[in-house]
Amino acid sequence: MTSEAVSPGTVRPGGRTARVRSAVLRAAGDALAEHGLAGLDLADVALRAEVGRTTVYRRWGTPVGLVADLLADMAEQSLPRTETGTLVGDLRANARLVQRTLADPRQGALFKSVIAAATCDTQAAVALHRFYEIRVSEWEPCARQAVERGELPEGTDTREVIRAVSAPLYYRLLTTAEPLDEAAADRAADAAAAAARAGAFVGPAR
Amino acid sequence: MTSEAVSPGTVRPGGRTARVRSAVLRAAGDALAEHGLAGLDLADVALRAEVGRTTVYRRWGTPVGLVADLLADMAEQSLPRTETGTLVGDLRANARLVQRTLADPRQGALFKSVIAAATCDTQAAVALHRFYEIRVSEWEPCARQAVERGELPEGTDTREVIRAVSAPLYYRLLTTAEPLDEAAADRAADAAAAAARAGAFVGPAR
Repeated sequence: MTSEAVSPGTVRPGGRTARVRSAVLRAAGDALAEHGLAGLDLADVALRAEVGRTTVYRRWGTPVGLVADLLADMAEQSLPRTETGTLVGDLRANARLVQRTLADPRQGALFKSVIAAATCDTQAAVALHRFYEIRVSEWEPCARQAVERGELPEGTDTREVIRAVSAPLYYRLLTTAEPLDEAAADRAADAAAAAARAGAFVGPAR
Repeated sequence: MTSEAVSPGTVRPGGRTARVRSAVLRAAGDALAEHGLAGLDLADVALRAEVGRTTVYRRWGTPVGLVADLLADMAEQSLPRTETGTLVGDLRANARLVQRTLADPRQGALFKSVIAAATCDTQAAVALHRFYEIRVSEWEPCARQAVERGELPEGTDTREVIRAVSAPLYYRLLTTAEPLDEAAADRAADAAAAAARAGAFVGPAR
């Protein structure tokens, strides 16, 4: 517990700690979006965040420690799912959210950087996998309710339906120079819904 | 033209140059698979390839120059497509090839590394996009012939069908800890075929 937590009335419990974390993760995200993991430097992040270097070194330790905490924070802050009442409506809302995020210059660069970080560091990979697990869990009820409504066959692997919406958008971001536009988002959602309706995701979860 | 090309009979035209390139790109691929772009060092590659440092510096210049040429070589060497006579058969063959490649420890690590390199370097990104353009062009006739056979609707964006097969496999590789097995490959192919049959890829190519 930090010293300011013992001064109730002036600072709410966790107030300063939360503000420091918020400022540091914002700065780390900016640095990652600008320069990638290779350009992520704890002293630079401390400077950008206007936080003492010692605090940053003590609490996050390494650049990858910052990436892991940033991903944990992104998972905590990820938006709740949309409920439209139909599978295609829900999946399009999901696809549009992914598309807007990846098409945003800062966010798109940030996602590329954390994916790149995960390819070469186990701690970053674990944090990235956890981020996507949480994200899939948030949206999985869209597919589960579609099964309950009879829109999708019994036994559908509902998590795979949600992953199928995101996959073509990430693949486009990472392997092509083509724009991530709303048409791409809607196509991703419609393709996932059509495949799911045809039973392509029925089977044991792996 | 290098000096050995003027000695016909002893070395075939391009023979030594081709062997040097092959050895250097093999060594670069090994280094990338082991350490990623950050660990790709021209002097180390020259040593591994048993080629003079000067040759490597003069011909490839930078680590990213090596990555770009490696991707060009991978595109030249990519396997011809399979023809089975049905859309699902062709797409499953494609999916199994992608899956075997990404599940192979060296190749999987190499693909992760070049994708990571492309996130932070424009020259690497251009080379990576070109690699996937060539790969999609090789397999696109599977979908085009399916349109001609009446298996898929007229107006299907046939390149998007091929991309839809790869997307979930790359997404699984990059964002989850789940294994890239044959079941995942078949599911990717079946989902792409079902979505294509339902008309999800009909529309103007973007």
